[in-house]
Amino acid sequence: MRTTSNVYTDLAMEAAGDCGDELDGVTVMSEEDGEAGLVTTTVHIHNEEGERQLRKSIGTYITLESQSLMENDPTAHEVIIKELSRKLGELHNLGKDDVALVVGLGNWNVTPDALGPKTIARVLVTRHITGTDAVARDIEDCVRPVCAVTPGVMGLTGIETGEIVRGIVDRVRPSLVVAIDALAARSISRINCTIQMSNAGVNPGAGLGNKRMELSSKTLGVPVIAIGVPTVVDAATLISDSLDYILDDMIEQGGCSEFYNMLKDLQAQEKHGIVQEALTPYAGNMFVTPKEVDAVIGRLAGIIANSLNIALHPGITLDDINKYF
Amino acid sequence: MRTTSNVYTDLAMEAAGDCGDELDGVTVMSEEDGEAGLVTTTVHIHNEEGERQLRKSIGTYITLESQSLMENDPTAHEVIIKELSRKLGELHNLGKDDVALVVGLGNWNVTPDALGPKTIARVLVTRHITGTDAVARDIEDCVRPVCAVTPGVMGLTGIETGEIVRGIVDRVRPSLVVAIDALAARSISRINCTIQMSNAGVNPGAGLGNKRMELSSKTLGVPVIAIGVPTVVDAATLISDSLDYILDDMIEQGGCSEFYNMLKDLQAQEKHGIVQEALTPYAGNMFVTPKEVDAVIGRLAGIIANSLNIALHPGITLDDINKYF
Amino acid sequence: MRTTSNVYTDLAMEAAGDCGDELDGVTVMSEEDGEAGLVTTTVHIHNEEGERQLRKSIGTYITLESQSLMENDPTAHEVIIKELSRKLGELHNLGKDDVALVVGLGNWNVTPDALGPKTIARVLVTRHITGTDAVARDIEDCVRPVCAVTPGVMGLTGIETGEIVRGIVDRVRPSLVVAIDALAARSISRINCTIQMSNAGVNPGAGLGNKRMELSSKTLGVPVIAIGVPTVVDAATLISDSLDYILDDMIEQGGCSEFYNMLKDLQAQEKHGIVQEALTPYAGNMFVTPKEVDAVIGRLAGIIANSLNIALHPGITLDDINKYF
Amino acid sequence: MRTTSNVYTDLAMEAAGDCGDELDGVTVMSEEDGEAGLVTTTVHIHNEEGERQLRKSIGTYITLESQSLMENDPTAHEVIIKELSRKLGELHNLGKDDVALVVGLGNWNVTPDALGPKTIARVLVTRHITGTDAVARDIEDCVRPVCAVTPGVMGLTGIETGEIVRGIVDRVRPSLVVAIDALAARSISRINCTIQMSNAGVNPGAGLGNKRMELSSKTLGVPVIAIGVPTVVDAATLISDSLDYILDDMIEQGGCSEFYNMLKDLQAQEKHGIVQEALTPYAGNMFVTPKEVDAVIGRLAGIIANSLNIALHPGITLDDINKYF
Repeated sequence: MRTTSNVYTDLAMEAAGDCGDELDGVTVMSEEDGEAGLVTTTVHIHNEEGERQLRKSIGTYITLESQSLMENDPTAHEVIIKELSRKLGELHNLGKDDVALVVGLGNWNVTPDALGPKTIARVLVTRHITGTDAVARDIEDCVRPVCAVTPGVMGLTGIETGEIVRGIVDRVRPSLVVAIDALAARSISRINCTIQMSNAGVNPGAGLGNKRMELSSKTLGVPVIAIGVPTVVDAATLISDSLDYILDDMIEQGGCSEFYNMLKDLQAQEKHGIVQEALTPYAGNMFVTPKEVDAVIGRLAGIIANSLNIALHPGITLDDINKYF
Repeated sequence: MRTTSNVYTDLAMEAAGDCGDELDGVTVMSEEDGEAGLVTTTVHIHNEEGERQLRKSIGTYITLESQSLMENDPTAHEVIIKELSRKLGELHNLGKDDVALVVGLGNWNVTPDALGPKTIARVLVTRHITGTDAVARDIEDCVRPVCAVTPGVMGLTGIETGEIVRGIVDRVRPSLVVAIDALAARSISRINCTIQMSNAGVNPGAGLGNKRMELSSKTLGVPVIAIGVPTVVDAATLISDSLDYILDDMIEQGGCSEFYNMLKDLQAQEKHGIVQEALTPYAGNMFVTPKEVDAVIGRLAGIIANSLNIALHPGITLDDINKYF
Repeated sequence: MRTTSNVYTDLAMEAAGDCGDELDGVTVMSEEDGEAGLVTTTVHIHNEEGERQLRKSIGTYITLESQSLMENDPTAHEVIIKELSRKLGELHNLGKDDVALVVGLGNWNVTPDALGPKTIARVLVTRHITGTDAVARDIEDCVRPVCAVTPGVMGLTGIETGEIVRGIVDRVRPSLVVAIDALAARSISRINCTIQMSNAGVNPGAGLGNKRMELSSKTLGVPVIAIGVPTVVDAATLISDSLDYILDDMIEQGGCSEFYNMLKDLQAQEKHGIVQEALTPYAGNMFVTPKEVDAVIGRLAGIIANSLNIALHPGITLDDINKYF
Repeated sequence: MRTTSNVYTDLAMEAAGDCGDELDGVTVMSEEDGEAGLVTTTVHIHNEEGERQLRKSIGTYITLESQSLMENDPTAHEVIIKELSRKLGELHNLGKDDVALVVGLGNWNVTPDALGPKTIARVLVTRHITGTDAVARDIEDCVRPVCAVTPGVMGLTGIETGEIVRGIVDRVRPSLVVAIDALAARSISRINCTIQMSNAGVNPGAGLGNKRMELSSKTLGVPVIAIGVPTVVDAATLISDSLDYILDDMIEQGGCSEFYNMLKDLQAQEKHGIVQEALTPYAGNMFVTPKEVDAVIGRLAGIIANSLNIALHPGITLDDINKYF
């Protein structure tokens, strides 16, 4: 069996899939809405053994997959927005006037990393008007106090993103933080057609950068919902996986045992070197993304922002979204 | 004498000028560099009486004025960068490894309010690389740890800008905060050709918005240098001043005393109403700015960022700026 | 009577209003939809005498006015989109497969001048996919071949915008050109709440710049529909009008004849000088715009783009707009 | 020998390198400036045989390679700007008042494709001021009439980029067109550290899109200089090349002839399938680019724009560039 456990993915469902069935401390459930072509997979990581195997924190990870996310298909997107806002509602437990802070992670200058900032631009921000005379009483009943920030990335600010968010949380004292980020998938087939929600926190820059200070209830002191879409695959991962395919094929077909052993040997010895050589001088710092990434990111930002607007504001429905945004 | 004390300006030198000579608790000094066409005015507000009269906090306000700021005149801009960085150097007293945080105030979506964010994009950010292996020892000696954020405006975030900055300051604990903001002047003739520095703090959004939580050593616990350029004049102020001109003219020329008294009466009674009528339905929420505002803001952001790069980083000179930025 | 004919406005309805009732060669009709608070004014300029008086070309100018354009009021915006797309439909006479070219005039770097480019970003562009295998037959029936460009402004390109558009029209040979531009109004009260459509062509940069080569059936050889929203008032116009208000007031109240004559004299002599002095050193190159201009421009761009999407594409309805855009 | 002739590269020097020495109708010369680490390679394609082999049009292709392009190394960049402007000067033969049109190809919404539009933003545009009273006589002597456009990409406009450019050329009638575009390289090692100039025209969108209408003296009727930087590698090419590496390695080591034959067979049969499988569902529409692409593109745009400013404007030197831009 090909062992892939040393390759990183931000998606819990990919990590679980790679590990096969014999997972201890992990539950995986999947349901399919045939009509809408929507597959929902829920991964629960129950304990440290599950954490270790999936290299993800304890918590619930809900993934919605739909090919329609890559197309301009509003009818299908309505189904996704409805399902996404329903699942988001399940992950939080806010009182009527509790404040929510939405954080758009990522670098607004790099198209596939701009999902967070682009989502923030469409979130209905209300914290500064609730409780003031500027807002009629009836609007007040429709909206929760929501605020939103785009903290930037360390290369632009010189500050760990986690530090900036923690500073703001300490002042604003929200009851919930929602963090939006672009992710890295393992498989090209999940790019831009998969939305993962989780109550287990997030590491800013995991998708396109290095691991940074975690945003979670542990570090921020309030519940954190992370929402992410894989928009890139790490280039080294892609090449490595492609080499695995061809070697697996050859092993299956292989006749002479000398050959078989050489191949197994090759895998261990050569693969890493070939990947490095192919990516020189960039090593692990290249990513793969589709050409039409700009259009797709804009659409995904709209879907996530609208799902948040419905899930966070008590009086906003899908009909309002269709009209207002 | 025309009383203008009820009209707001962000410039201490304009406030001092309107109050005439009899100012208690305020010192005003002016020097002119004829060659470069550069006028430097320093206003010291010494005590609460000075604060009350100028409606500005106690502290030093240095203003550089040069018509060349509105033109593409690099030779003149070099003189300004040199002078600006020298004056900035006088306002701070940082040790070699002390951290400076630069804050770009304002709304990046509104051209004349984008000075702060545009400046941040050109500041050399180094805090994340100093003290790491990524930086050679000799670079380390050239640069101070500088970090930089663009907190946005309350209409976009739902949070007081001062709260965001204070949260970040609490985490990063810099030894100095430098805040860049677009200002409102009283007089059109100061737009885009005046740079004010001050150690007395700043109210984010003073230029284009309402008064917000002050950024100052009082609220942040560290010294604050504010750098601002007036990029707009409030439309109500402009109309009001224009009406004053014409009425003053008429009073000077006026023959019959009945007429004279009516005019004085008019000033008090009608001016406010006429200004309101002229700006309906926008009341105090309109500003005046020049058509070529985009080009000028870009140039000013470059001048301020480069002055900061020289003033904050010990090993960076004007020659480096010419080459690097 | 105050004569204002020497002050410029891009709005035919303002020009007609200033001229009073005795207009030869001009018909003005107005209707009000009380429920939606929507006032529609149609100005027909029939002949050269009408052209001369209104300083606008022969043609039809339809203006929709609604205070709701300045607010986030989707129900009212639906009514406007419906009416706007209906009126646009009346102005063109395209066959099923005729190509339409939409042109977004203005400077994308200056917020109140960015209406055209921002509208283009939301127009459904189809010319490159119609007639290809990429598009299913049923989509083909829904959409007309539409293309769209943002030619920039002369300060950025060094080329008259009209020359760029004419060059593209010569290659693409559309059956209709639709030009979107930000305009200058005479009155602050029309800013951002007025949409003017016309079949009489447009002068790019009329709102924020100088008069340039006209885009019209005369210069392009195909019908041109112009859509514009006044987003600024010229600062000199605003001051001049404010002075008129106060002088008119004084004349009404004035007792002694000496005074009356002096005032009349003043109007002629001094007003121009005072306006110039107030705007020094910017002369005629300043504009007035509301502080929240960024949010309003975004909303207006959406309303115009959606009206165009309905008016140009045979199979797209308001319901689709609600879902898709 | 591995045959790679079916894989595309925009770089003539890569195409020539892959073809080995036995090229008919192609001359390749290379020189190295050791101090600056700058390698200049000139490929002349003399005839149709050369065209066929390299799949590039007849003409001269000059490539500058320097690792310093990926770093913030202004001293090295000065050498490159000097060399680039010198080589550009060799490629054109403009009279003093001849007009040059600079075209920034590519999609401004996709970071690695935005090189052209970002370069245009820094080109000194003068055509609209030369010959007018706005410009003093002495400035007139320093600058050539230069104009510049960013035509967008077909997905945004619905129009072939070549059609837009041709339309503008027909109106403006420049004596030279300079087209800037992001390219696709074959090898990761050439990404962002290679600048190619050519007098053989360009196909907009070659790097990130499909082949479109050529911009060349043939299609535009005036000389065309193309300047490009490879900012991406096609993902399918990268995987395919990586598979080649590993198979070549195995063949070299291989013992049994059965094995050897199988491998050769595999290459032909399986490689294409594996590449397709790895990239499903994106097929040939994915690209690979480095994470810090935003910073690099900005720097490259500045280097190319400044080289153009020196090469096109007779009175602008490297010293001016250091000061002005």
